[in-house]
Amino acid sequence: MSVAVKVSWITLNRNLKLVASQCLARSVSQMATSAPPSQMEEIVKKFKLPKAYEGSRPSVWVEYIQLAMEYKPLNLGQGFPDYPPPEYITDALMQVASDGNLHQYTRGYGHPRLVQAIAKLYSKLIGRELNPQTEVLTTLGAYEALYAAITGHVDVGDEVIIIEPFFDCYEPMVRYAGGIPRFIALKPKSTDGTTLSSSDFVLDKTELESLFNQKTKAIILNTPNNPLGKVFTLEELTLIANLCKKHNVLCISDEVYEWMVYEPNKHIRIATLPGMWDRTITIGSAGKTFSVTGWKLGWAYGPSNLLFNIQMIHQNSVYTGCTPIQEATAIAFEKELGRLESDECYFNSITKELEPKKKYMATFLQETGFKPIVPEGGYFMMADWTPLEANVDLSSESDQYKDYRFTKWMTKNVGLQGIPPTAFYGVEHKPLGENFVRYCFIK
Amino acid sequence: MSVAVKVSWITLNRNLKLVASQCLARSVSQMATSAPPSQMEEIVKKFKLPKAYEGSRPSVWVEYIQLAMEYKPLNLGQGFPDYPPPEYITDALMQVASDGNLHQYTRGYGHPRLVQAIAKLYSKLIGRELNPQTEVLTTLGAYEALYAAITGHVDVGDEVIIIEPFFDCYEPMVRYAGGIPRFIALKPKSTDGTTLSSSDFVLDKTELESLFNQKTKAIILNTPNNPLGKVFTLEELTLIANLCKKHNVLCISDEVYEWMVYEPNKHIRIATLPGMWDRTITIGSAGKTFSVTGWKLGWAYGPSNLLFNIQMIHQNSVYTGCTPIQEATAIAFEKELGRLESDECYFNSITKELEPKKKYMATFLQETGFKPIVPEGGYFMMADWTPLEANVDLSSESDQYKDYRFTKWMTKNVGLQGIPPTAFYGVEHKPLGENFVRYCFIK
Repeated sequence: MSVAVKVSWITLNRNLKLVASQCLARSVSQMATSAPPSQMEEIVKKFKLPKAYEGSRPSVWVEYIQLAMEYKPLNLGQGFPDYPPPEYITDALMQVASDGNLHQYTRGYGHPRLVQAIAKLYSKLIGRELNPQTEVLTTLGAYEALYAAITGHVDVGDEVIIIEPFFDCYEPMVRYAGGIPRFIALKPKSTDGTTLSSSDFVLDKTELESLFNQKTKAIILNTPNNPLGKVFTLEELTLIANLCKKHNVLCISDEVYEWMVYEPNKHIRIATLPGMWDRTITIGSAGKTFSVTGWKLGWAYGPSNLLFNIQMIHQNSVYTGCTPIQEATAIAFEKELGRLESDECYFNSITKELEPKKKYMATFLQETGFKPIVPEGGYFMMADWTPLEANVDLSSESDQYKDYRFTKWMTKNVGLQGIPPTAFYGVEHKPLGENFVRYCFIK
Repeated sequence: MSVAVKVSWITLNRNLKLVASQCLARSVSQMATSAPPSQMEEIVKKFKLPKAYEGSRPSVWVEYIQLAMEYKPLNLGQGFPDYPPPEYITDALMQVASDGNLHQYTRGYGHPRLVQAIAKLYSKLIGRELNPQTEVLTTLGAYEALYAAITGHVDVGDEVIIIEPFFDCYEPMVRYAGGIPRFIALKPKSTDGTTLSSSDFVLDKTELESLFNQKTKAIILNTPNNPLGKVFTLEELTLIANLCKKHNVLCISDEVYEWMVYEPNKHIRIATLPGMWDRTITIGSAGKTFSVTGWKLGWAYGPSNLLFNIQMIHQNSVYTGCTPIQEATAIAFEKELGRLESDECYFNSITKELEPKKKYMATFLQETGFKPIVPEGGYFMMADWTPLEANVDLSSESDQYKDYRFTKWMTKNVGLQGIPPTAFYGVEHKPLGENFVRYCFIK
């Protein structure tokens, strides 16, 4: 029996079994059948990704979650806590779930109670009264806010400055929009071998200035930065802001780790720098703020003319957010708004909870032979793994970049999973990330 | 005092008050200030929607929800029930909310338990074993599934056939992708004045054939159709399928109302027609299936090569779905899978619950003077309002299309809100919708 005949026979046999089992299901009237093999070639040829999306591949997250499911390592890869969120948050969702009236469509640009709460909080934080209707948009995760902000502003041929290492979705989002990413890497200012801090990684002023030109539409800022944990200083932000103003450039500021900033560092919102309000979209995340990454709730705030562009993308890609999740998050925000000054406020307590974990992770890594970069914010730590190179069999993996090989070997052989930072660099600068691994310490 | 000075003074005054109030909030270090008026012009000029999105406006939903909030009419506009969802659904969410382990990121292409349940259900329904990993994707509403399916396949210059009246997002989604919508309207086959059924609205075969050509990438099918309630027959679907096969065209089949089909009509999945599996993406909705439109959970299923394209758009626009909502929906599906044959199965009972509401709505509309089009599926009813024209002051509204003027007048003066169907037609065919209004009867 030829292979083709055998396959057909197996398929037929399987289908017959299925048909038999379906007789139980009332609605079956037809059976889905494949196109003849002769048509498959032209189907595959025609129904492929549009040109702008060519070359898209599953992201590092897809690959590493698969790896985690297979090898069940201690997963310090993805950025989420492995302990329950604060009880009052999950209680809020329980309460909302039990109310039969909170399960239908809500306002597309943001659930009224939630945009009110968000506007109230950030009005205080940025010293400017936000209009909850026109200056705040809730999104399906900060991820969607980034997508809508980029897609709603970046036109074909526009240049977008991306600071490396960067949250990996920035690059495909810019490319999908037809934009051209212009990368600039944060580089260590001293390499004397002492413990590195994320503050040692800096932008070269001349290099940054050279990237701004007439084609520059936007710069994407991420402070605190993922994966490095760098918290940009007022001086650094002022440099960026001045260049934005000089060249009339939009700043998309991803501030999802805004509440995780270690003393004595301070989170500064670039929208509050002189004259920056009108050219800044700031993005936040309930997942990061309340330790519920699975809620997929984010927001963007900024001037109404910029928000309008984001609203249009949001309206025509997802339309509206999840009602119960938005209501529960509103309840959580209202609670925190009532105790902003208190140490019990989750916005204040989360960093205190993370501080010892950060120290433990740094010590653990150091004692194991890594050279950690102690972060000023966020809940990730980059570490140089090359002192361990002699103990690791990188030849057992076939990936192009050494950090992929290291992290895969570690997952499979030591049971510890981290994320390879070359995923956070443009292709030209990937070698800068090869010696590192990113671990998450909100565990 | 000039207007400009006055405005500045008011702004300054307001800002000073805010600054005073902020002294309470620890994190305030800066105050968001506007760019100088001299820069505003170039900011507004540069930071606008990219060309592909030019002319985007708030959708009919945004406008009519605003109207509903203002006039508080009996809202028969948007398609959601105004009574609580089945208790076991909300119980499932409560149960999930109380579990501290179900609030973090899940698998990007679909929560494992949910894709398993969806694959199990549709494997039965379409007579083909679905691979939950590669042939099912869960999305943030059917809306996002539509967006990703269209964006993942339609390239610049591709033609996409859209059957009118259509769910209004199809058109901007196709245009955003650079595609060219080619519209064909369902037209009444007889107008003898007797009660119309949605089955009286048909496609002209020659007209449909004439739309297919070498540039045609896809056709968007919606059965049961929103807003008309038409359930496409096997004969009609076969015509479409044969044209898809002849011209190598993709079928994006929006079947979110699949469980709301009135006797003796049957819902037929076009993916089950001979040879159609490989060229069909089928889209469903937990919101419509379980009467929880606010959950924003949908899915797409189809062959893995087409699903891959959707996954790439999903991965780079929203990345992953909401974990607790997906887990709760999985629980709901599992319950229904255990009683598919029973009248208690919600998939079977929902139509029975809707049947009297449909009859009531038809009678009510007829007695009030409308001419309703009785739907074969879904929970909307279109009705010709022109017999009432003499009683309505259309001149009080300024919209271009009469159905907008009628529905707005009714909202403001009678306290009854419907949706204007011209929103569901391409610009050329909008006059076909002007005499109608769409009411939702899942109330």
